[in-house]
Amino acid sequence: MADNKGKMVEAITSMDENFAQWYTDVVLRAELIDYSSTRGCTILRPYGYAIWENIQKGLDAEFKRTGHENVAMPMFIPESLLQKEKDHVEGFAPEVAWVTHGGTEQLTERLCVRPTSETLFCDHYAHIIQSYRDLPKKYNQWCSVVRWEKTTRPFLRSVEFWWQEGHTAHATAEEAQAETLQMLDVYADFFEKKLAIPVIKGRKTDKEKFAGAIATYTIEAMMHDGKALQSGTSHNFGDGFAKAFNIQYTDKENKLQYVHQTSWGVSTRSIGAIIMVHGDDNGLVLPPFVAPIQVVIVPIAQHKPGVLDKAAELKSKLEGKFRVKVDDSDKMPGWKFAEYEMKGVPLRLEIGPRDIENNQCIIARRDNGEKITVSLDNLEEEVEKLLQAVHDGLYRKALESRDSRIYKATNYDEFKDIVANKPGLVKAMWCGDVECEMKIKEDTTATSRCMPYEQEQISDKCVCCGKEAKHMVIWGKAY
Amino acid sequence: MADNKGKMVEAITSMDENFAQWYTDVVLRAELIDYSSTRGCTILRPYGYAIWENIQKGLDAEFKRTGHENVAMPMFIPESLLQKEKDHVEGFAPEVAWVTHGGTEQLTERLCVRPTSETLFCDHYAHIIQSYRDLPKKYNQWCSVVRWEKTTRPFLRSVEFWWQEGHTAHATAEEAQAETLQMLDVYADFFEKKLAIPVIKGRKTDKEKFAGAIATYTIEAMMHDGKALQSGTSHNFGDGFAKAFNIQYTDKENKLQYVHQTSWGVSTRSIGAIIMVHGDDNGLVLPPFVAPIQVVIVPIAQHKPGVLDKAAELKSKLEGKFRVKVDDSDKMPGWKFAEYEMKGVPLRLEIGPRDIENNQCIIARRDNGEKITVSLDNLEEEVEKLLQAVHDGLYRKALESRDSRIYKATNYDEFKDIVANKPGLVKAMWCGDVECEMKIKEDTTATSRCMPYEQEQISDKCVCCGKEAKHMVIWGKAY
Repeated sequence: MADNKGKMVEAITSMDENFAQWYTDVVLRAELIDYSSTRGCTILRPYGYAIWENIQKGLDAEFKRTGHENVAMPMFIPESLLQKEKDHVEGFAPEVAWVTHGGTEQLTERLCVRPTSETLFCDHYAHIIQSYRDLPKKYNQWCSVVRWEKTTRPFLRSVEFWWQEGHTAHATAEEAQAETLQMLDVYADFFEKKLAIPVIKGRKTDKEKFAGAIATYTIEAMMHDGKALQSGTSHNFGDGFAKAFNIQYTDKENKLQYVHQTSWGVSTRSIGAIIMVHGDDNGLVLPPFVAPIQVVIVPIAQHKPGVLDKAAELKSKLEGKFRVKVDDSDKMPGWKFAEYEMKGVPLRLEIGPRDIENNQCIIARRDNGEKITVSLDNLEEEVEKLLQAVHDGLYRKALESRDSRIYKATNYDEFKDIVANKPGLVKAMWCGDVECEMKIKEDTTATSRCMPYEQEQISDKCVCCGKEAKHMVIWGKAY
Repeated sequence: MADNKGKMVEAITSMDENFAQWYTDVVLRAELIDYSSTRGCTILRPYGYAIWENIQKGLDAEFKRTGHENVAMPMFIPESLLQKEKDHVEGFAPEVAWVTHGGTEQLTERLCVRPTSETLFCDHYAHIIQSYRDLPKKYNQWCSVVRWEKTTRPFLRSVEFWWQEGHTAHATAEEAQAETLQMLDVYADFFEKKLAIPVIKGRKTDKEKFAGAIATYTIEAMMHDGKALQSGTSHNFGDGFAKAFNIQYTDKENKLQYVHQTSWGVSTRSIGAIIMVHGDDNGLVLPPFVAPIQVVIVPIAQHKPGVLDKAAELKSKLEGKFRVKVDDSDKMPGWKFAEYEMKGVPLRLEIGPRDIENNQCIIARRDNGEKITVSLDNLEEEVEKLLQAVHDGLYRKALESRDSRIYKATNYDEFKDIVANKPGLVKAMWCGDVECEMKIKEDTTATSRCMPYEQEQISDKCVCCGKEAKHMVIWGKAY
């Protein structure tokens, strides 16, 4: 924050003392977000937005690789259009912002600010799809959406948030299902290989699925405090929206058919996941792929001749390949160390007069604090290796932390005891009845996160009612 | 359009017969835009959005090169915040969309959907700027904004449009003025060097300046029909907003000072300019920098052995450096030619059995129809040269077309005659009084486009009232 300039970085709340306060401290002190004068809406500051830009670049490349095209839809949905699909309007109407006036005049029909854009895409698809030759249509848009949330938290739940929403239309149910699963895989790979966050892939129960979908798939991640964060979802709509919006095509036999649709999204919530999975008591810890600064060069005794020149030389050596910054401000090195630790920069490179003499530098890893002496002769390869090591280290640590806190429960007392006393997730069998799901939520506040792809036969019986079990479910408290 | 599939491309309205209809035909038939069910809002289709993505990439690199950082602000502005700067609210309040309800509940304060974000940036700057060390702040955001326009046209005037808005805060008036002019130069260079559109740089009269600015600078381009299009603007706010929002910093002498601010923007209107400057009776003509497809490869007699393989080979040869597509669909080559001409693809590469025998191909330029036989041995260099030639050809043609239609008027009869009878722009002297500006608009519908940087002394007297002249103004009918 601007008012910290010139003084040493103040300590933030410790994670284990007060995780919620720690989270807010990190978000503000790492300058990711500022609050705005609009209730529940935040400002993405340059450092926070730069992380989002890197996420966008990574995902957008994957969407294009898998044959998707970007478009831009209006931000407003006429009320009558929102109402066309029954389940969808029931799910979203209670939480939308309504525009009722344009200038000084009252509108004849209210417009809602998009909470999601299925209805707009369907309306467009009904207009542009006529023949099987027009299929598939695989569109995506990057935008912000609005949901009138009462209680909000930076990145996790806000009135406005930024995301991408993919919307596709296919000739057959099989193609739509394959697309739904493919995009969940794209998300899972991105979280694991770029954000260093292990995820559990699974299907949502009917109670938890998207309003209007026949099936919702999810990737669920575990945060430092043991709570789950739904990190990306992919929905198969079947032909429900197509029937509501009359999206038909003539097939090769010249018969009219309804299209089958999907949608899928990842949002700025993913930044919340990065913070809560990798962060520590010194602040943010960023996976190298998204870090706006991957290497910060801190000159030591920078008033001594040659030091700043050498720092600049190392920067120009690295910057073709990495995102590098030299901090040659007049702050003390210790202050700079603390500041870039707060900001989660993966590698700090220290260079002083003695290092120059020895043709070396010191590199400190943000993830584990390790300091390594590196020869300047093969700096680029070393930096590349160390960034990979940081990524791998973060992933391994997150995976161990998660796996050590996934429990199994075979009866309801055990289940309740775990939820009450052990932060983490619980695997337990379920009969498939929504009544059990609701009872569990009421008794414990844990919700069904998903029915994982990797099913295990923990017992034969539903953990709640004791009837025959149909699925293994992962349960947990969630953001 | 989807319903054209399988038949030959239908002719569009001729430009000279009905320019407005030609424009609409091109926008729809090149699949840039579709109308939506939300009044005055359009959909940017994949081909239109890809042009916008290329514009974004080009401008964003320039913004970063000149030291700007991207952020994201809320889309809503509380009414009380919009009202803080008097001129600004007067300018924008009559044309904003108002959110009055969140879910089922009426808001205690209305929110407007941002028509522009000065007030949000000021509110944030007041929060984060304390000391001279915090300056300058040079932010930009890419987003859409909303203005409740009554009559709309794709890209040129719509209820929602996409743009970037830069907002900066500086310690001194001189720095703010330098920033204002620098960003106008960035825009002018981008239009000329990337979009091949010549522009006139100048300052707006007080009547035409931005609501709340002390000076507005503009780049004005001439469309095929002789009308002007304001293509980018850069505003110097002085310390007016700073005083209204109390944005102060302590200087090096520890005294409180107000910041000096600027803002500047370019929008999807620029796509309208591309269409109306370069387009012809065969459709869109795209400058290579923004073309989603720079080279389309059309195989000739593609059922003959080796043709499709060769087409694929040429594609893989070119695609590292250029945006290339092979159209191997079963449509007739003539249909493909017409389709990619409609879409404005700069180069069409034809490859057939005889070409393969001769180790050559035919390349047709979209800008002038020229067909060149090119050896496959140095294809990459030839394509590079030809793309540059297309850019240069487009720019030269646009410049000649514009310069041949800029007239000079030394008396009012001459002025009125030119505006009435000669499509184009008129240079004439002006006394500086708003009364003359308003009389000219009322008498002729021409408005003052700008006071160009390059002033000429056409006469001593105001073309309207005959009093002493202060500035040369460019006048014209405008979009």
